[in-house]
Amino acid sequence: MADVADFEQKLKEVADRVTVALDQLIPPASGPEANLMRAMRHAALANGKRMRPFFVIETGAMFGASDKSLLRTAAALECVHCYSLVHDDLPCMDDDDFRRGQLTVHKAFDEATAVLAGDGLLTLAFKILASNETHDDPAIRVMLIERLADASGARGMVGGQMIDMLEEDSPRDLNTITRMQRLKTGALISYAVESAAIIGHAREAERNALAGFANDLGLAYQIADDILDAEGDEAVAGKPLRTDHVAGKANFVTLLGVDGARQRVRLLAAQAKEHLAIFRDKAAVLLHSVDYVLDRPR
Amino acid sequence: MADVADFEQKLKEVADRVTVALDQLIPPASGPEANLMRAMRHAALANGKRMRPFFVIETGAMFGASDKSLLRTAAALECVHCYSLVHDDLPCMDDDDFRRGQLTVHKAFDEATAVLAGDGLLTLAFKILASNETHDDPAIRVMLIERLADASGARGMVGGQMIDMLEEDSPRDLNTITRMQRLKTGALISYAVESAAIIGHAREAERNALAGFANDLGLAYQIADDILDAEGDEAVAGKPLRTDHVAGKANFVTLLGVDGARQRVRLLAAQAKEHLAIFRDKAAVLLHSVDYVLDRPR
Repeated sequence: MADVADFEQKLKEVADRVTVALDQLIPPASGPEANLMRAMRHAALANGKRMRPFFVIETGAMFGASDKSLLRTAAALECVHCYSLVHDDLPCMDDDDFRRGQLTVHKAFDEATAVLAGDGLLTLAFKILASNETHDDPAIRVMLIERLADASGARGMVGGQMIDMLEEDSPRDLNTITRMQRLKTGALISYAVESAAIIGHAREAERNALAGFANDLGLAYQIADDILDAEGDEAVAGKPLRTDHVAGKANFVTLLGVDGARQRVRLLAAQAKEHLAIFRDKAAVLLHSVDYVLDRPR
Repeated sequence: MADVADFEQKLKEVADRVTVALDQLIPPASGPEANLMRAMRHAALANGKRMRPFFVIETGAMFGASDKSLLRTAAALECVHCYSLVHDDLPCMDDDDFRRGQLTVHKAFDEATAVLAGDGLLTLAFKILASNETHDDPAIRVMLIERLADASGARGMVGGQMIDMLEEDSPRDLNTITRMQRLKTGALISYAVESAAIIGHAREAERNALAGFANDLGLAYQIADDILDAEGDEAVAGKPLRTDHVAGKANFVTLLGVDGARQRVRLLAAQAKEHLAIFRDKAAVLLHSVDYVLDRPR
């Protein structure tokens, strides 16, 4: 129990640091375009778990990587995650009114502002990584940028969201859902550990281990989310549930059943932890993160 | 007259090369997310003047810069321009049905796909610039990326579009319209010549001259566009005109009058040309581009 409390404390500390960094990195709301910055801030400074930044920072800590490089990379990654939420929430996509306990951007502002705020956050992510404040070595910065573009582009996150949109019209099988997950949420989780490995000059074996860890964890995370959607308590989850059920969408739970899904999560969690064996004691926080994913409040 | 034909031939050659490059750079339409790539291709491979790529390539030619570096940078810039058109055309923004002689992306596909195709093109722009195919030196690539993010972000193009959206609700004056133009269209035109100067290792005096040229030309271009909107022939322009008039929006023509606007264009064009004096004969093509902006078919 003490361990769980310690972990959650660590998670909160990282979340707070990332929020402070984002507050400094997003331009202040001034000029006739101030509305845009207000919307970007609404989206990015809201209370989030900041799981992706957490993985950047805690993975980087294993390699003794520079705190500043990790924090800025984490902030850039969170900009991409937040932009994707703003666009995914739009009426033409998932049409959600609430996110992270507050109105979505198109509800608090309007649709045009939401589209532009998402565009602004995505662009800002690359600006943050390109700056020499992020790392002295331009070769490292350019590698961080190229991999972020891969993870978030048409063959990454955006492609995953496209599959999610299309699947409303056609039946999904396990292969399609797994590919969708790998692109839509898995790619950014993989980027979190990969970017830290780049900054930390990880050896190839270490990079491979981290890639395997992120793959298994990302998939477990999504399946756990589908279980939460099927069985959770909306008040505890802080968001509407049974959404897939209402939309008639297949997901891991509808395809595997709750018990099958739970079993899959346990298997993936065990695999994810095995990948970390190479790091021995240094992986303690990442190991805990797997349990956290398994046991989220529902 | 021979000169005009030569210039238009050159413009067409560059446009064709950029279209071929974009065709190779946008991922092929495959996998369950293929719809996304089809939409990106619809937006980016359509018949456009490719003025921004033209300025990259012709400015770079003055410095004898690498063709491949210029072409890839031009393609990245065009990705950003095309993404902005896709998002600006959305129902929640300008709500346009036609663009470049074909249906807009949200009409040919749907709104969700249009939002995602824009996101995919923006992300692709940074991927193109980050690749070592664009330039051997990562310090150059990272500079190209940082400046593109500045030109297209919240204090650049996206900020300009925000002002344009807001101004529907409140009266515009010349200062606001000038700022809007500088951000919304000027920033990318400036990036075109600036990126070429970076690749071509231009001296500071040359960079400053090019910045002045792009500023004046960008503004002249926008005023000429407002004149076209007021006086042009829709069949020749290939797009709906009198849109500002219909929307009750102030623009350079409503504020300065047609004669005043024409005079302003002439003044700016003369200034733009003066900036190029430093390049002597080498600036012949850029000088012609100014006349082309002045005398577009209307």
